[in-house]
This record gives sequence, C-alpha cells and structure tokens, in this order.
Amino acid sequence: MYGWVAPLDVSTSHSLKLRTLKPTHNPLFTLLSVENFQPRKLLKALSLGPPHCEHKHQLLSVPPRKMRSMTLVDPWLQTSSSVFNHPTQTQYRSFLALIQSPIKSTPTWPNYRSTPLAISAVITKEETATEDETQNPTTFNFKTYMAQKASLINRALDEAVSLKDPPMIHEAMRYSLLAGGKRVRPVLCLAACELVGGGHHHSAAAAALPAACAVEMIHTMSLIHDDLPCMDDDDLRRGQPTTHKAFGEDVAVLAGDSLLAFAFEHLSTATVGVPPARILAAVGELAKSIGTEGLVAGQVVDIISTGISTVGLGLDQLEFIHVHKTAVLLEASVVLGAILGGGSDEQVERLRRFARCIGLLFQVVDDILDVTRSSEELGKTAGKDLAADKATYPKLMGLDKSREFADKLNEEAKEQLSGFDPDKAAPLVALADYIAYRQN
Amino acid sequence: MYGWVAPLDVSTSHSLKLRTLKPTHNPLFTLLSVENFQPRKLLKALSLGPPHCEHKHQLLSVPPRKMRSMTLVDPWLQTSSSVFNHPTQTQYRSFLALIQSPIKSTPTWPNYRSTPLAISAVITKEETATEDETQNPTTFNFKTYMAQKASLINRALDEAVSLKDPPMIHEAMRYSLLAGGKRVRPVLCLAACELVGGGHHHSAAAAALPAACAVEMIHTMSLIHDDLPCMDDDDLRRGQPTTHKAFGEDVAVLAGDSLLAFAFEHLSTATVGVPPARILAAVGELAKSIGTEGLVAGQVVDIISTGISTVGLGLDQLEFIHVHKTAVLLEASVVLGAILGGGSDEQVERLRRFARCIGLLFQVVDDILDVTRSSEELGKTAGKDLAADKATYPKLMGLDKSREFADKLNEEAKEQLSGFDPDKAAPLVALADYIAYRQN
Repeated sequence: MYGWVAPLDVSTSHSLKLRTLKPTHNPLFTLLSVENFQPRKLLKALSLGPPHCEHKHQLLSVPPRKMRSMTLVDPWLQTSSSVFNHPTQTQYRSFLALIQSPIKSTPTWPNYRSTPLAISAVITKEETATEDETQNPTTFNFKTYMAQKASLINRALDEAVSLKDPPMIHEAMRYSLLAGGKRVRPVLCLAACELVGGGHHHSAAAAALPAACAVEMIHTMSLIHDDLPCMDDDDLRRGQPTTHKAFGEDVAVLAGDSLLAFAFEHLSTATVGVPPARILAAVGELAKSIGTEGLVAGQVVDIISTGISTVGLGLDQLEFIHVHKTAVLLEASVVLGAILGGGSDEQVERLRRFARCIGLLFQVVDDILDVTRSSEELGKTAGKDLAADKATYPKLMGLDKSREFADKLNEEAKEQLSGFDPDKAAPLVALADYIAYRQN
Repeated sequence: MYGWVAPLDVSTSHSLKLRTLKPTHNPLFTLLSVENFQPRKLLKALSLGPPHCEHKHQLLSVPPRKMRSMTLVDPWLQTSSSVFNHPTQTQYRSFLALIQSPIKSTPTWPNYRSTPLAISAVITKEETATEDETQNPTTFNFKTYMAQKASLINRALDEAVSLKDPPMIHEAMRYSLLAGGKRVRPVLCLAACELVGGGHHHSAAAAALPAACAVEMIHTMSLIHDDLPCMDDDDLRRGQPTTHKAFGEDVAVLAGDSLLAFAFEHLSTATVGVPPARILAAVGELAKSIGTEGLVAGQVVDIISTGISTVGLGLDQLEFIHVHKTAVLLEASVVLGAILGGGSDEQVERLRRFARCIGLLFQVVDDILDVTRSSEELGKTAGKDLAADKATYPKLMGLDKSREFADKLNEEAKEQLSGFDPDKAAPLVALADYIAYRQN
C-alpha cells in the first residue's frame, strides 16, 4: 500500500546536518532528526530521486509556504493542505523523519521496487534549550523546562500516532495533533507526575508520558469537533485550515472519534511500570472529563445559551461553561499525572484543587486580555467578546475586580502546593504564574 | 434545576400494576416497574397533579403516538421528538420509571416545593419470557435466553445513562441508546463471560454487564455519527428519526462523543469484582475496536471507495470494510466478556476466532438475504445492494458459493467452541445459528 520516496540526502550540499538516529518500534523505520535547515532545501533533498519518480514533481510544485507536517505516502499522497506553507528563507531548528532502516552513513537510493517505504516528517517550532540555560540546574528556568517537555511530547505524539494504513485518517489525526500549540495540558500532566513521583525526574515523567499524550489527543479531538460547520463553524485553527476544511467534514468527524478512542488505547496499553489499578483510575478520570460532566457539558450548555443574550447569563452559568470547556481537562491532566506518579489520595486532591484554580484563572486572564490588549499583541482579534456583547469577567465584575479575582485564584492555586518540596513544585508554580501573567 | 412531576398513580383505576421497586444509586429515586399498560392511560396517570402544574397540559397535548422514551424534566422538558408516538390501544408489557423515593404504597402527591424530582421512563418492547419457557431448564431455549439478557441489558443501560444535568444531552444519548435493537453485541459479551466464568451464571455475567453496556454505547455512537448528513445522511434509524433529525447535528455529534467517552468511564468505574489488570485489558481491547484498526477504519475506507465502482472492489477490500465496520466490534464484545470472566489466554483467543467468524458470517448472510428475500420479509428495502451495483458476496462468488461460505464460517465458529463445556457453550452456538439462519 505504501509507495516510496527518496531518503533524505543528508550531504552538506543541502546544509542538512544529521543529528540523531533512533530505532523505532517498527523495524522498517528509523527516526531521523535533522537540525538547522530551510524547508525549501529540505524539500529538494527529499525530492531527488530516480527519473521516473512522479511524486517528486508533485512535491516540488507545492508553493513553499509554512511547513508543519509532511506526509509522503503513495498512493494517498497528501500535498494539498498541511504541507509546506512557509516563507522560503526561514531557518528551522529541528526536523524529525521516519526513514527506512538501516540508514547508511552515505545515503544511497533505496531499492524502491522491493522495499517500499513511507516517510513522515514533523517540524518542531519550539526552541530547543541553549547550553547556557541547561548548565545551571540550581535555578528553575521555565522557558527551558517548557521547551524540553514540549519537545518530548511532540516526539511522543509523533510516534504514537504514526502513519499507518489507511493513511488518510492517520494524516488527518496528525494534521491537527502535530500542528503545534503550547502543550500546556501534557506539560501539566508530566509536572504533576514528577511532583509526586519521588524518584528520578526522568523516570517519573515516563510513567505519565502516554497520559500526557492522551490529554493532548482529547484536547485536539475537542477542537476538531468544535470547529465543525454544525458547531462553531471555524475555518482556521492555529494559523492553518481547520481539519474539516483540509480533509472534509466526514473525515474530521472520524478523526475526532479515533483520537478520542486512541487516547484510551494509548493510555491503557502504552503506560508501563505503573500498577494496573492506577492506570485504570486514570482511564476513569480522563473519560469523566470528556463526557457530560466535562467538555461535552460545556459545549452543550454553550449551544443552549445561544440565542439567550449572553449578558443575561449570570456568573454561575458563565463559570459552568468555562469550567467545563477549559478547566475540567486541565484538571484531568494534573490529576492523571498525580495518580500515575503514585500520589496519595490527599496529594491527588490538593493537585485537583490546584488545577481547578488555574483552569478558571486561564479564562479570567483571557477575558482581561481581550479588553486590554491589541489584536497584534494577542495574535487574534481583540475586543471580540466586547463586540459580541458576550458575558465576560470584566463585564460582570469590572476590570479591577477581575484582576483581583485572578490574583486570588493564582494565590489559591499556589497554596495547594505549599505542602510539597518547593524545588519539585517549581514547575507548577511557574505554570500558574505563566497562566496569570501571560500577555497573549 | 429539575422540576417536578406527579408520581405514577398505580391504582387499579388505570390498570397499572406495580411490579417491582428497586433502589437505585441515587437515593432520591426508586426504580419503578409497571407491566401491562396502555400508553395513553399511563400518560394520564403521570399527568394528574396539583392544579397549577403546567406540564401536565403540555404533556397531554402531545399526540399519543409511538412511545419509546419519555423524559419529564423542568425546565428542559423534551416533548417534541422522542415521546409518545404510538397507536392508543397498544398494550405494552413493561414500563420502567425512576420515581422519587421512598414511594408509598398508596401514592400521594410529593411535596413538590421542597422535593423536586425527575422521572424518566423507558418502554421495553422485548417480550418477557413466558412461564412455560422458563420451567424447563434442561434444554436451552434461545428465545428465552435472548429476552432475559436483553431485558437485563436494557435496564442496565437505562440506569447507566440516567437523566442528569444538562438534560438535553442525556436525552439525546438515551434517545438512540434505548430505542431498541436486538442487543446482539452485549448478549455476546455476557455469554462469553458466562462461558469462561466457571462459577454461578448470574455472578459471571455481572462481571461483564458494564462491558456489555459499553459495547452497546459504542455501537450506538457509531450509528449516530454514521447517520450524520456529512456521512451517510440517513433520516431514519430503527423506525424513528435519526438523532440529528430529532436533536440537531451539533447535539448529535456531542451525544456520540459523550457515549464514546462514557463507555470507557462505565467500563472502568462500574465493573466490580474483577482484578484491575483484566479491566484495563478490556479497556485496551474496546478502544482498539473503535479507532483506525476498527470502526473508523471501515468507515474511512468506505468513504474512500465512494466514487470507485464498488464492483471494482475485490473480495479483499470488501472483506476489509465488513470486518472493520461489523466484525471488529462483535469481536471486542466477545473478547471483553472472555477477559472479564477470567478466561485463559488460549480461551480468549479461541473466542476471538469464534467472533471473527460470526462477524463475517453476519455480513455474508446479510448479502444473501438482500437478493433472496422480499422487502416485507426483511423489514427494509430488498435488492438495495443489487440496485446500487454494490459488491456483495453473491455477486462476487455466486449465491451457492456464498451459502457454502456461510456454512463454512458457521462451522469454523463452532469448532472454536469445541473445547468448552457444551452446556455453557450452548448460548454462543445458538447465537451463531441465529446469525446464520436468520430470515431478516
């Protein structure tokens, strides 16, 4: 079913530097990581191939725009939507690809007749840590922490939802899942796991890595379904066409469904070194955060409220929608990490309260930014809530009181962390501050 | 949030006979079961109330048509779609209701000001076993077995997805979930559990009851999403308007999502008396049957194949679609039951092969019936596949060979059961024969 593509020509003529080679679960493929490259040059390297390779022409005819996720699979070649849309001269930090294994130090063309292969590539936009930042372990560097975790999560997501048969649905799942985002939910999950995990940070986080991927899958799934024409009818998400615009409504519905199901498959089968009872508790928590006590409840009350002037909504109802649409999954992220890390019931409950506070904080700050910042600063249309006459915290309680409320929520959140080792709690404290003081 | 409704007047004047009273998980409610009633009389009994009760009038103004599922909740009263559409004189066998507890033997009006209550009712159309059939335990009576299990499952589903806040989404979930159906998947799940469970039949089945509900939730969820306008665009399902026709597309998408999530919540939290490792394995199996190796894969390849003349499909592709759209969930149903019943790895694998055979058998027989039976006999349009020039087994291998293939599959299925106690295997043998020899 899979076609072939020329392997990366990693010679210096294309300024591509081979960084790491890592075997993957599939013996056919090796994880190839390249750093410091320009998309156009990479494309060229990827497109060189035997003369009768038709796909290289197809590939080169795509305007080199912003490049996010790339999939070269025959006969299902997807070139229309998610591939290559970026200004030519931009230099990217890293590039991950799956390539036929074993790769040779001097690449040659694969015997494409007998060894079909697929290549899947993801560009990570997150900055990698500089050496300066990593050399001082005594002070907590939030930026470095976030970048390291996001990079870990991006790689894990890329491996978890790999390109398999049938390719179209996997490409649709990857399209939105790997389109970037700050990865706040999975980072919260890993941080909570490390906080209660006792032992070595790395292994503690490993216990929660499949769970961290699962919460991001659920988040992505909810975005895909919320963007559907019959729901919020959005055309753009994270600067690229929404999934149904790129793949059609039917595939978007199915991509959401399979991400939802796969989150549970991944959590239940890929979590290792954790007693089954804990994993099972995590499954129950995650499921609860999605259905009629979680994301779906928020969305359905939002739908019911349409037609009612949203200003007519009281603080209670506003909070219900926000808590369910935003806070519940943040809560699940933290709680899953705490459960899988082996936290006591009391620790899990403290972290649950922490997560509820930052979940609401997230929304209060969003509302404040909407009235105080320009569109340019936000990276999205400012004053939208005001124009839509939408109920917001500044509208319902005034700007000053909203800021006080935000401060109070941040304080309450941090109080929940007071019983923990301050060094280990540093990432969650910094995440709360990040949510409270962010400028966009 | 919940309003009130008068309790059932179970006096003889309405020919309603109180059968069972069973406490539910919610201390506010008691499960009330009534047998032999007419919908209109029941409606009247339900609608009698204090003079200022507005809802009784709303309720009575609904034409007494076929009554399937009834929900009386204030202020979200749902009277428009799923309620009361049946010829007046039809006598129904049983009626289940949740009613405020404790119920008094001589019902009086509840103190509705201080004790708001909700009532949720489901009419079960399945015939209950007659006494003759249950008095001879030595021979296996398939009809009785199916009726008993279906009734058990219907009650369990009704309790699992109860009416809660927000009501609209729960009503939408219940609308399709409780609309009937033969409950083949959950019965397979219970039967497999009993087969490997060793001990007392009743307790063995109890271990798999939440799993049996979960597979029916997944089946229903797939029907709701497959019926959407952007998918198969169907208006009718099981003789009533599809979920999106009754509740709107947005609610249909969300009802499917929450049924999908709730299946995992229910399986992971409501299964009792089973080691966590087994439940976790069941979660993984169920998840796998939904995503890109299960239902979604079948649907997406079906979508891709649209436009290609389906006759152009080979037997391989036809089988891929059928296996994924039908057989995989049947397989999961059986495997979940076997795992939760404590079956050995070998027993689980034997039952998995059994399920694969009957899954394919199901489709082969469907194709045969489409060309050999009239629409009246089938209860749906006959010859549809032929008219649509669709690839079917009779078309690809001829009618005789298709029948041979069906016999072979049935035989293969039964071979897998040969190592088990014949008495305990009787339900699965009968289920295979039912699938093979059904006439519609």
